[in-house]
Amino acid sequence: MTIIITAFERSPDGGKGLARDMRVRWALEEVGQPYEVRLVSFRAMKEPAHLRLHPFGQIPTYEEGDLALFETGAIVFHIAARHAGLLPDDANARARAITWMFAALNTVEPAILELATATILEGDKPWSKERLPLVEERVRNRLGQLSARLGDADWLDGAFSAGDLMMVSVLLRLKSSGILDEFPKLAAYVARGEARPAYKRAFAAQLAINAG
Amino acid sequence: MTIIITAFERSPDGGKGLARDMRVRWALEEVGQPYEVRLVSFRAMKEPAHLRLHPFGQIPTYEEGDLALFETGAIVFHIAARHAGLLPDDANARARAITWMFAALNTVEPAILELATATILEGDKPWSKERLPLVEERVRNRLGQLSARLGDADWLDGAFSAGDLMMVSVLLRLKSSGILDEFPKLAAYVARGEARPAYKRAFAAQLAINAG
Repeated sequence: MTIIITAFERSPDGGKGLARDMRVRWALEEVGQPYEVRLVSFRAMKEPAHLRLHPFGQIPTYEEGDLALFETGAIVFHIAARHAGLLPDDANARARAITWMFAALNTVEPAILELATATILEGDKPWSKERLPLVEERVRNRLGQLSARLGDADWLDGAFSAGDLMMVSVLLRLKSSGILDEFPKLAAYVARGEARPAYKRAFAAQLAINAG
Repeated sequence: MTIIITAFERSPDGGKGLARDMRVRWALEEVGQPYEVRLVSFRAMKEPAHLRLHPFGQIPTYEEGDLALFETGAIVFHIAARHAGLLPDDANARARAITWMFAALNTVEPAILELATATILEGDKPWSKERLPLVEERVRNRLGQLSARLGDADWLDGAFSAGDLMMVSVLLRLKSSGILDEFPKLAAYVARGEARPAYKRAFAAQLAINAG
């Protein structure tokens, strides 16, 4: 059955690969599944047809026959659960890989989202300059803990998994802030993710839509 | 094998059921699995022994034989995947229930965490009063979308699932703010969650540790 995902007609990041369809594209490339992309405008994202697919009016969505999913974490998990390549076979190792998916999305990303909110949505507010260091400190706190756990390993728990895919995707949002470079082990971890052939194919595919 | 979870020796909420061990207790009660609780102090949470279990120095953790997990979403998913009662049998319905788990943790909870940060960590800052309405508006935006999707249904997608357990748990954090009451359908949804016998048993168990 054909897999159809949605992506921004024009991504706010202009093709830097930070829109969330990138996470789904990357997962599909890792497991070797072809997919089609339906582009949606900002206006269409808030209209009833799209809201039926995605109650929060965002991208990406995932359609495959009569299955329709939203929420990047759930889509990546669905892909990883049905195709070899993103989750280990051993039950305990699998549970730990899934743990890193949730940790990326619920422990690391909220602090990074706050930083995005502080700089983008609240960048022009009178408190912005004074508040930013507090927000950055909360991000550094999480990154310090993550870096300590990663240590000198290539990936978070054995072989590359959907947990790494999600963690690298979350950390990529920090690249322009300079904070990631304060944690050389994490910067190298992210670079290892970006060097994967599947990542590169996914990146090129979203860039082709958003460039120019 | 005995299941052992960790919880706060003294919960910051004094037993209101907002600490994250509550989500795991509730899941275990829903599927009828007994468990033991190991209490950890704030100091012990930051020490090497606990950090080996939980790299971000938080609770809860989950141990079962040689499996050790952290991250509430992952623990609840693990419980739901191994025992009947929290995920539907039908593959598509199961994928949708898992979607709501991720939506609760990565789309709804970040906005609610920002509100907690704004009122607790930054409540004494000079910008606090002026900034709070912006943060609350972002929460209302999410709740409005969620309420529209829920409509008059009892649960988010058919029967009660781990997705509802997680969404109700996330929304409960808003109770003291009054914002939840602005969305009567969501307030009733949360009340349905709290009325479940499994929720009540879990709540009583954590209250017994934290009260008095």
